[in-house]
Amino acid sequence: MKTTRLEAFSDGVFAVAITLLVLNLRDPGGRAGLGHRLLGLWPNYAAYAVSFLVIGIIWVNHHDTFARLRIVDRGLLFLNLLLLLTVALIPFPTSVLAEHLRASHDSHAAALAYGLVMTVMGLAFTSLWVRAARHPELLEPPHDSAYAWFRARRSAAGPCIYGAAALIGLLSAALSLALFGAVAIYFSLERSARFSSASPVDGGENGI
Amino acid sequence: MKTTRLEAFSDGVFAVAITLLVLNLRDPGGRAGLGHRLLGLWPNYAAYAVSFLVIGIIWVNHHDTFARLRIVDRGLLFLNLLLLLTVALIPFPTSVLAEHLRASHDSHAAALAYGLVMTVMGLAFTSLWVRAARHPELLEPPHDSAYAWFRARRSAAGPCIYGAAALIGLLSAALSLALFGAVAIYFSLERSARFSSASPVDGGENGI
Amino acid sequence: MKTTRLEAFSDGVFAVAITLLVLNLRDPGGRAGLGHRLLGLWPNYAAYAVSFLVIGIIWVNHHDTFARLRIVDRGLLFLNLLLLLTVALIPFPTSVLAEHLRASHDSHAAALAYGLVMTVMGLAFTSLWVRAARHPELLEPPHDSAYAWFRARRSAAGPCIYGAAALIGLLSAALSLALFGAVAIYFSLERSARFSSASPVDGGENGI
Amino acid sequence: MKTTRLEAFSDGVFAVAITLLVLNLRDPGGRAGLGHRLLGLWPNYAAYAVSFLVIGIIWVNHHDTFARLRIVDRGLLFLNLLLLLTVALIPFPTSVLAEHLRASHDSHAAALAYGLVMTVMGLAFTSLWVRAARHPELLEPPHDSAYAWFRARRSAAGPCIYGAAALIGLLSAALSLALFGAVAIYFSLERSARFSSASPVDGGENGI
Repeated sequence: MKTTRLEAFSDGVFAVAITLLVLNLRDPGGRAGLGHRLLGLWPNYAAYAVSFLVIGIIWVNHHDTFARLRIVDRGLLFLNLLLLLTVALIPFPTSVLAEHLRASHDSHAAALAYGLVMTVMGLAFTSLWVRAARHPELLEPPHDSAYAWFRARRSAAGPCIYGAAALIGLLSAALSLALFGAVAIYFSLERSARFSSASPVDGGENGI
Repeated sequence: MKTTRLEAFSDGVFAVAITLLVLNLRDPGGRAGLGHRLLGLWPNYAAYAVSFLVIGIIWVNHHDTFARLRIVDRGLLFLNLLLLLTVALIPFPTSVLAEHLRASHDSHAAALAYGLVMTVMGLAFTSLWVRAARHPELLEPPHDSAYAWFRARRSAAGPCIYGAAALIGLLSAALSLALFGAVAIYFSLERSARFSSASPVDGGENGI
Repeated sequence: MKTTRLEAFSDGVFAVAITLLVLNLRDPGGRAGLGHRLLGLWPNYAAYAVSFLVIGIIWVNHHDTFARLRIVDRGLLFLNLLLLLTVALIPFPTSVLAEHLRASHDSHAAALAYGLVMTVMGLAFTSLWVRAARHPELLEPPHDSAYAWFRARRSAAGPCIYGAAALIGLLSAALSLALFGAVAIYFSLERSARFSSASPVDGGENGI
Repeated sequence: MKTTRLEAFSDGVFAVAITLLVLNLRDPGGRAGLGHRLLGLWPNYAAYAVSFLVIGIIWVNHHDTFARLRIVDRGLLFLNLLLLLTVALIPFPTSVLAEHLRASHDSHAAALAYGLVMTVMGLAFTSLWVRAARHPELLEPPHDSAYAWFRARRSAAGPCIYGAAALIGLLSAALSLALFGAVAIYFSLERSARFSSASPVDGGENGI
């Protein structure tokens, strides 16, 4: 009951943020033919797709997380607000990265900014599980603190990988974006497996 | 239960994407009188209305589809994310088509881009039913795989028509848009018939 | 059950459209001081407030309407989509009216465009009740067709007043906007009275 | 039942308004390196974070308020619409403040505008509790009017603090924004405590 409302509001923010990404796609105009200009927007398409998948994955994980929480305390509410703050921010670094992916010098700063926002988002997500592990009374019965720590550790892989991809952006922005994309596709398949296996219908022996 | 949340999030993306279409409508300014300028925006109005109806139809079909699914597995979740990715993208080709509908040459590239996005969206939708047909355990009882294949085949009409309309855009962008509009009006009446006939009140003998 | 989903999607469109109105508010820049520039945006504030209230009223009426419907058929679904199409359109004429409210000549075209969109929206809303009156099986028991006709006639006051305000815009755009604002405030108080009186708690003797 | 729908619509407006804040973040372009330009946007980041937290807090308070209301009458519906009108407006003064925070003169007008919108929003929120206190039949049993007056008085701290911060903006816009930020962080922790303590699970002795 308590978590339902928080999820509904969070879902709204996820849905708006993921849809605002399209505002980064615009015909740049110019003398070249339209077909040529549209094809030239490939960095924008790539950034759109990667950010869309990343937000989609975070949404799936968000739901999986709150399905395991019984109530929400002050700390979780605040940490969730921080998570939403970073999710709602994503269209901005996505736009910056798309615009500068082919620039000689600025591409590195753009990839670093993109990776930093993603890393902070991952940290905010991990902090939800750390909070739950420290306050197992927030969890659904049987209030399994060890499981929450397990989830916290595992979700920490996100900000670690994101941080690494941010640093790789200092070498090559395109490589960094490709890495984010590969991770997003990997997790969207792996994560959604967990999503369905968490179903009470399918049983819980692998519901982690 | 499982599909409810996915639908709520998807509904949010549909609602935002359909409403963002209005951002393509702007007074272009210039020396002509405002009334003249507003009338001159007819390609924008036409593209707005057609894309609005297309997204509205997809929303109706989306609900009808998930009402027949019992659970969502990893594949469906990923395919649904791909569908949402194309739905959220629609304001972009809509804007491009509206701006270039009257151009001599660029109109063809604009119509092709518009048709391509629609076609991919249709393919993503069809793939939902193919997945369900291959995994009938995802369907509501009686897990009727034959019915899912029937739906997959029938929904394949969408991308086929959309692809044809995209190719027609190479001849005439206005004709292509008019075709999309005619298909949208046809399906919005035909689809909604199915929507209501799927009601348990009305009985299911024609609930296809 | 059937109407719940339609309402949730419609609510999403209402919420996004009403919030997108803020995008019409921007610092115009220039040499004047910021305070001066912000005060000079009063037509934008007025148009924002009036359109916000109008959409808010339509939302209340929309809920009151669908609370009295049992199921949604193809016609209602299509008419509702037309209503949403006009609601989602409102930020555009709002922007046009705000920008030209003080123009000598263009203000009339702007007010006419604003009034026309409102009038079509009102007609779409009235058509929902006409459809329900012609198909009383769509209504909640006791399927009172006479009541639906009563609502259809009464809701027709909306497009009539809006149409009159549109024509008054040919004389004075500011007067037209003021009229929309007065009507919005009047209806937001009168409508919400109906909203609460429709409650099963309060009884239904005046639940019209 | 009655309040549920109002909350769902309000949640939508909150979610869209909070996510539209990101549109104020844009690469300003120019000759400086991208990293330099992105760091130079710190007023935009600060304004984004503060407005995000303020809207987040109002959302929490909004839910807590409507959880204590049984039905919504005409007055509450209208006052809630006024509250949403100011919430949806926040991206505008946020943008103005971010753009002029470092200006020598215009920063004061920007901070005053920001603070005024926040103050009016706070007044609209307080007015919800005043209305409920005057009409205790709107409250959940036991229709405790004294409790509603207590909440009205306490929530009046919001517009008072916001008004003071607005006036401080006449001295220093940065100080004013910092004050809003400090208040937001304080309330997001204090408020969320109330949020969780209102849970029926935790008991109600401190559920104020």
